[in-house]
Amino acid sequence: MHQRQEVIRVPTRGQGLYEITAEVARFVRDSGVETGLLTLFIRHTSASLVIQENADPDVMRDMAEFYARLVEEGAPWYRHVMEGPDDMPAHIRSSLTDVSLTIPVAAGRPALGTWQGVFVFEHRRRPHERQVVAHIIGDQTGTPGA
Amino acid sequence: MHQRQEVIRVPTRGQGLYEITAEVARFVRDSGVETGLLTLFIRHTSASLVIQENADPDVMRDMAEFYARLVEEGAPWYRHVMEGPDDMPAHIRSSLTDVSLTIPVAAGRPALGTWQGVFVFEHRRRPHERQVVAHIIGDQTGTPGA
Amino acid sequence: MHQRQEVIRVPTRGQGLYEITAEVARFVRDSGVETGLLTLFIRHTSASLVIQENADPDVMRDMAEFYARLVEEGAPWYRHVMEGPDDMPAHIRSSLTDVSLTIPVAAGRPALGTWQGVFVFEHRRRPHERQVVAHIIGDQTGTPGA
Repeated sequence: MHQRQEVIRVPTRGQGLYEITAEVARFVRDSGVETGLLTLFIRHTSASLVIQENADPDVMRDMAEFYARLVEEGAPWYRHVMEGPDDMPAHIRSSLTDVSLTIPVAAGRPALGTWQGVFVFEHRRRPHERQVVAHIIGDQTGTPGA
Repeated sequence: MHQRQEVIRVPTRGQGLYEITAEVARFVRDSGVETGLLTLFIRHTSASLVIQENADPDVMRDMAEFYARLVEEGAPWYRHVMEGPDDMPAHIRSSLTDVSLTIPVAAGRPALGTWQGVFVFEHRRRPHERQVVAHIIGDQTGTPGA
Repeated sequence: MHQRQEVIRVPTRGQGLYEITAEVARFVRDSGVETGLLTLFIRHTSASLVIQENADPDVMRDMAEFYARLVEEGAPWYRHVMEGPDDMPAHIRSSLTDVSLTIPVAAGRPALGTWQGVFVFEHRRRPHERQVVAHIIGDQTGTPGA
């Protein structure tokens, strides 16, 4: 059983979804793991992870707009306002989506569906460099089960 | 350390929750793993996973209704409409629930609570065959720790 | 490869977030695992897990208030009401947040970001003792990859 861990750095330029599917597939390939388990973990509380359709860019835009409408900026009842009007909504939007994702690996690749892409969902207005810890554990040969 | 991977196919007949707890327990039993980690991953962006109470069917109905009300069909601001009025809401509802679940395995069974069931949450109106990748990694004997 | 599993018991005293970061770090330390994968799984459907900022307590209060406002008590269309007015909202709030979290372990510690804390999110009014299954799998020496 083999393990590998790496921090994938993702520069963001304001709110929206940033696809990292290719970086994730590259990490799995580099690990040499054929069958195993891939975990992605974002080390932030104002950006999150999401797996979504990557065929039509309008899906990403509508996704971001839904969360912007659901979790409004400047709600009069927010107590935590000292880090700016986009900070508390960013925390809430993060909690509604994912901080960690676990994806089975088969034949040396993440077992994503045809239309699934992996995205960092940036919830803050200013540019950031986000850290996603990628961790894989598995066997470097063969495919058990199935 | 032992691994096993399998695709569980789940036919759906419209929006709602479909319980797969028995199939998941069967997969764990077949693997022979006594102590380990079970991951479930759905390979779609318009159906998701959820763990919820399986004692009263009204919980599943209320759950589905909540998401139907929260993420409306036909919002005038949706850009992604070419795949039908239930498609963009399906993507958003998926992102609000789970694409992957990781459940510890103890004594050869998923360590679910008494009332917890595992469900595929179908967000589209038409029937689909959904694929859930089940992956287990662990030891075939003993129970470490505890 | 080494495994360890333990049930962390968390007493709650009504709705809100209860931090368990220290207990989780202690579990990882006790396991002796240097590099690996930590999974947390809550065995309930009316309490959940969330990773959020633990620097300002107002973040936890605003978080709880957001979910209280989004998923109202006593909605006239709830069918599942026999377990009290806070039960169905508790199930829905649980499904919107997390039942399982997977966190990479590096240098013998969960690879959390600087401001990230792990919390049990209690959604019911009465006190409960909540069970969180902690499971770790990994190597007791070295740091592969990176």
